Amino acid sequence: MAAQTIITLTTDFGPSSPYVAAMKGVILSINPDVKLVDICHSIPPQQVLQAAQVLAATTPLFPNEAIHVAVVDPGVGGSREIVYVEFPWGRYICPDNGLLGRLAERGQPSMIVTVVEEQFYRSPVAPTFHGRDIMAPVAARLSLGLNPRELGPPRTKLRQLDWPGAVKVANRIEGEVVFIDSFGNLVTNITREMLTDGPTDDRTAIHCDEHETRGIFTTYSDQPSMTLVAIIGSNDFLELAIVDDNAKIMLGVEVGSAVDVSW
Amino acid sequence: MAAQTIITLTTDFGPSSPYVAAMKGVILSINPDVKLVDICHSIPPQQVLQAAQVLAATTPLFPNEAIHVAVVDPGVGGSREIVYVEFPWGRYICPDNGLLGRLAERGQPSMIVTVVEEQFYRSPVAPTFHGRDIMAPVAARLSLGLNPRELGPPRTKLRQLDWPGAVKVANRIEGEVVFIDSFGNLVTNITREMLTDGPTDDRTAIHCDEHETRGIFTTYSDQPSMTLVAIIGSNDFLELAIVDDNAKIMLGVEVGSAVDVSW
Amino acid sequence: MAAQTIITLTTDFGPSSPYVAAMKGVILSINPDVKLVDICHSIPPQQVLQAAQVLAATTPLFPNEAIHVAVVDPGVGGSREIVYVEFPWGRYICPDNGLLGRLAERGQPSMIVTVVEEQFYRSPVAPTFHGRDIMAPVAARLSLGLNPRELGPPRTKLRQLDWPGAVKVANRIEGEVVFIDSFGNLVTNITREMLTDGPTDDRTAIHCDEHETRGIFTTYSDQPSMTLVAIIGSNDFLELAIVDDNAKIMLGVEVGSAVDVSW
Repeated sequence: MAAQTIITLTTDFGPSSPYVAAMKGVILSINPDVKLVDICHSIPPQQVLQAAQVLAATTPLFPNEAIHVAVVDPGVGGSREIVYVEFPWGRYICPDNGLLGRLAERGQPSMIVTVVEEQFYRSPVAPTFHGRDIMAPVAARLSLGLNPRELGPPRTKLRQLDWPGAVKVANRIEGEVVFIDSFGNLVTNITREMLTDGPTDDRTAIHCDEHETRGIFTTYSDQPSMTLVAIIGSNDFLELAIVDDNAKIMLGVEVGSAVDVSW
Repeated sequence: MAAQTIITLTTDFGPSSPYVAAMKGVILSINPDVKLVDICHSIPPQQVLQAAQVLAATTPLFPNEAIHVAVVDPGVGGSREIVYVEFPWGRYICPDNGLLGRLAERGQPSMIVTVVEEQFYRSPVAPTFHGRDIMAPVAARLSLGLNPRELGPPRTKLRQLDWPGAVKVANRIEGEVVFIDSFGNLVTNITREMLTDGPTDDRTAIHCDEHETRGIFTTYSDQPSMTLVAIIGSNDFLELAIVDDNAKIMLGVEVGSAVDVSW
Repeated sequence: MAAQTIITLTTDFGPSSPYVAAMKGVILSINPDVKLVDICHSIPPQQVLQAAQVLAATTPLFPNEAIHVAVVDPGVGGSREIVYVEFPWGRYICPDNGLLGRLAERGQPSMIVTVVEEQFYRSPVAPTFHGRDIMAPVAARLSLGLNPRELGPPRTKLRQLDWPGAVKVANRIEGEVVFIDSFGNLVTNITREMLTDGPTDDRTAIHCDEHETRGIFTTYSDQPSMTLVAIIGSNDFLELAIVDDNAKIMLGVEVGSAVDVSW
């Protein structure tokens, strides 16, 4: 038997939300053999940028045949479109609002389709819940073999959002905190690549708000307990942590706080 | 191969609770082929009414063969009974405490059985965890084909709870907020049906506590950002929202706050 | 068709964390037929003792063939080792930091292997995310039939942590609160066994901080609403609860608070 098709779900509905369960019910009613996987339902409400990061950090790790449904949709019921997008590493159904922006930095989509064919929707469609009534049933039908070209007309571009990119000028990189994990570790938008021509020893200074640390280390335990340490995190971005404690709480840092590196 | 039987779980154990995992272990030990789906584990402790709403909004969307286990059980170990209930749209195992009240408004059960046959339980039964020791194993055995009539004697009635229904008198409807979602949107108990003979334009006024909005719209984006808007939500109940913001926080509204509509 | 192999996940990553999804993606990319079950992702950050309790309360309920991956790993990237451990009731992959301490009280492992063979890892291995890059892929390969002896050299001992055990002297037991559930019930480390030679009526007094209750009951509803009641909980430990309310909040009790029983 072939493996069950995987459909993943990423939303801002909150953990254990009944809205998520509604989408699962619709999907399983159309294809009870789907394997459902929750990526994240704790995206802060309507934070498309944060969802874009989560999708980039997780979905490429899944089998290429997986279908990823992402519903962070501040414009639901308005004029924004819903798209089907195929990348070499996976297939996506989501509003065209920048959700796939970080993924698109990895490679070009091989197909983009604007989803318009209503015969594949649940009926009637609630204007405030396209996740349940459009995206879930379309994903389920794709998992049964529906040709995505039947969903609507092809197109060539996705909407992009401004991503707060880090900037490198000579021996200085200016970035910011873009994600804080459950340990309070501060993940920045400064990539491993940007740091390659700087030294990793204490000639390099990293500042976050008024706090400073020197040197870039390999793992948290390379520094003593309660020290601020800079490392390259598991997704290849510069990360700041307090060894054995919570940097977010200890330093009072939020997403958006400035981080700079200089040597 | 036939599709795996679906067993869904709805509890007030908290998201990611070890009590939920215990139930899953028991189910999978009896039938490792079951497909488990979490509906919601964030029901506020012992809030049967809220669980009844969540069950009504989600479980009918699943395949009819699915078995829905609901454990919100303030009377565990006392004299309340456990029931197996078959509706046209699904099968349920839960305490007989009103949990199926909102579902019963959609249609009559075709079978109700009081669960008493201990040979289908886990042994010994902990008096404080019938979810793990009675409901989980019974659901798992049903998924393997056990005839529900073997679980105990048939009966004809379910216990009902008083549901705070909205009241309509002439051109005025009095209801209340019954659910607040993760976006802070205020879902009321006023149905689409009750509103059909009123106008949807600004002749209709909606009050929630001391706040007023006029007109009933189709979706959030029909009104400007930061405006209080009334729409018919995705489950056909009147809903109040602040466009692009959180109505619960902005208005200080809680479940139980009065909402009235007049025209 | 044989049942799909079950892999369970227990972490301190937070509910709905993208780090959990990353592990799931890696596992399903290696074996898309695995059945994934979340045990708990709400372990307080780096609280190995609490994770050890959760693993003991849940994983033995799963089928014996299940593979349990536990990632509460304060020493990630440092000198601590990763182990594969086989008990009669299940197989485990985790850091060797005491996570299996409570399980080891139930019986001896039949096999312990130090995981060192890098060909079974994801490559490159991020020094801060062995869950994704070592434990997830190793578990997935075991689910495909990899012989665990190929993972590295056998060993005979696991690292233990000091467990705060209850102490019994004559007619007095001194213990403490070790877990508080979502209902605010206070689970102690005093076992059913320790209590067998005391009376269960009001000759037995139970103190928690300055609060007292007398007698050990069967279930919450054996006492009136709003009363402090002592029962033997569903995992055979003494538990304190306020009937129909939240003992943690009402009494201001925390994990670690002293509980004593005397008769």
